[in-house]
Amino acid sequence: MNALHAESIVIDGLIISKWNRPVFEDMRRGGLTAANCTVSVWDDFKATVHNIAEMKSHIRANADLLTLVRTTDDIRRAKAEGKTGIILGFQNAHAFEDHLGHIEAFADMGVRVVQLCYNTQNLIGTGCYERDGGLSGYGHEVIAEMNRVGIMVDLSHVGAKTSEEAILASKKPVTYSHCLPAGLKEHPRNKSDEQLKFIADRGGFIGVTMFPPFLKRGVESTVADYVEALDYVINLVGEDCVGVGTDHTQGYGQDFFDHITHDKGRGRRLTNFGTVLNPEGIRTIGEMPNLTDAMARAGWKPERIVKVIGGNWLRVFGEVWGA
Amino acid sequence: MNALHAESIVIDGLIISKWNRPVFEDMRRGGLTAANCTVSVWDDFKATVHNIAEMKSHIRANADLLTLVRTTDDIRRAKAEGKTGIILGFQNAHAFEDHLGHIEAFADMGVRVVQLCYNTQNLIGTGCYERDGGLSGYGHEVIAEMNRVGIMVDLSHVGAKTSEEAILASKKPVTYSHCLPAGLKEHPRNKSDEQLKFIADRGGFIGVTMFPPFLKRGVESTVADYVEALDYVINLVGEDCVGVGTDHTQGYGQDFFDHITHDKGRGRRLTNFGTVLNPEGIRTIGEMPNLTDAMARAGWKPERIVKVIGGNWLRVFGEVWGA
Repeated sequence: MNALHAESIVIDGLIISKWNRPVFEDMRRGGLTAANCTVSVWDDFKATVHNIAEMKSHIRANADLLTLVRTTDDIRRAKAEGKTGIILGFQNAHAFEDHLGHIEAFADMGVRVVQLCYNTQNLIGTGCYERDGGLSGYGHEVIAEMNRVGIMVDLSHVGAKTSEEAILASKKPVTYSHCLPAGLKEHPRNKSDEQLKFIADRGGFIGVTMFPPFLKRGVESTVADYVEALDYVINLVGEDCVGVGTDHTQGYGQDFFDHITHDKGRGRRLTNFGTVLNPEGIRTIGEMPNLTDAMARAGWKPERIVKVIGGNWLRVFGEVWGA
Repeated sequence: MNALHAESIVIDGLIISKWNRPVFEDMRRGGLTAANCTVSVWDDFKATVHNIAEMKSHIRANADLLTLVRTTDDIRRAKAEGKTGIILGFQNAHAFEDHLGHIEAFADMGVRVVQLCYNTQNLIGTGCYERDGGLSGYGHEVIAEMNRVGIMVDLSHVGAKTSEEAILASKKPVTYSHCLPAGLKEHPRNKSDEQLKFIADRGGFIGVTMFPPFLKRGVESTVADYVEALDYVINLVGEDCVGVGTDHTQGYGQDFFDHITHDKGRGRRLTNFGTVLNPEGIRTIGEMPNLTDAMARAGWKPERIVKVIGGNWLRVFGEVWGA
């Protein structure tokens, strides 16, 4: 591992891998200081509480590798102890169900990032794979409550209209935690230059994903293509509000992709990723040190690398979490 | 209010009053520094999460009077700020349902005291109003998890056999948070001298209630009868593991008593309290300063009063909560 990667606070803004020891070992191999780890997509309130309990059980059973993140100090502590900090995140606020009180309950359990919608409509708004009527009245209440209790609003899979209204509604920075620019490839999940500038201009944050179906060169991509996408976004919005959000799905097979690409996990098919093969060089979480190498090869100064590889996420998390 | 009451940390180990501003105002009038406030009796997991959300909403809406207690430092802070600290408690572990993960979730939400059973059998053991087969296998796991996450085990309404086995199973102090000695009146809810000594000898704690149906003189009782009951327990186990657990039901009417005295809130009737009229002098929470007066009149030294009115609870909570 190169020295800069080893010294830096490395934060992955989105991982949805299969939570087991091989993946946790790979997170350490990859030098991850912390990662926003998805524990809910199509799950309801109670199932999500159980997913959180299971993740906490993993953290206890793998305490040599992992620690739970509640504050940015916990991320700094993870760095000092050579562990990976697990940030609990949802990719769907479906788990909030119809009760605002569930939001503080989840915050109490340690949840720190929640995407408002996943691909389709829920009580709050609409996802990016269908007609989007915007943020609901309840959605406004949800964002106010998320602001109050310190859960970051994620909009990656959210529709354009709901996203715009959420960005305007939130009093704290919101994020596209894992997205790619439509300027490099048109795709329902990719964000236009206007959308990227809109969130950045309002204090928001952009995590760039390397998920191959959304990359220009798809499964032919290498880590250099991922750095190109990061460069594209940085050239648009500057280097202070951009970070990494890989969307690693390590350890999962076709069953998982079938589950997440059907509405509610079992309804109509919304999209078909085809072959999922991550960019050469960063196919696995353990190879993440190659990313800082590739950034350096692309001519990035160390200051930029340190910001984008984790420093920026650390700052914006502090702003949203209040600690 | 007398000076000793005003200066002391005053803790009520059990209140199940109707949670609204008049009661909160009376808690301040009564000089309560903190109280274990019941937010679940017959409620399942999700309903209990909603009850907690409602109590937190009360705390925010009445922030001039109240603060949430998560640690003993929060109790000291409540004292310094002239507020009443709300300790979230259950009178039935029914809300844990069949998932140990719910226990840490509740601890995260701030729950700090949970009675294992309420009057009848549940997954963990059996209450004091029916034949008691003792602590279940799951009950042993529940106690270990409560010990780990720092929730105090309460046994007031628990059957004799389940209580004995719970006292032996717990690695941290457990409590009868609101009980009276059978030595003064025989009643299924009252505890024998042997039971009181058994819990005390194993580091446990006894909160003494003034609930009139369990007092020797019933509705004829005065605050002096309550001090007599406290004296009875102190003479048995010493003054260091005894506190107050009034069981104030202020603001509730017959509907409430019907609900709590039927199994699961709607099944067969388990008991009938008849008229509930608290001892003269401490009929309402706001009159609690009369209790320290009565203790002094009974010849108690200030040191004993300070311990029993709250100091002892503060110490044992610290032992169980770990903070």
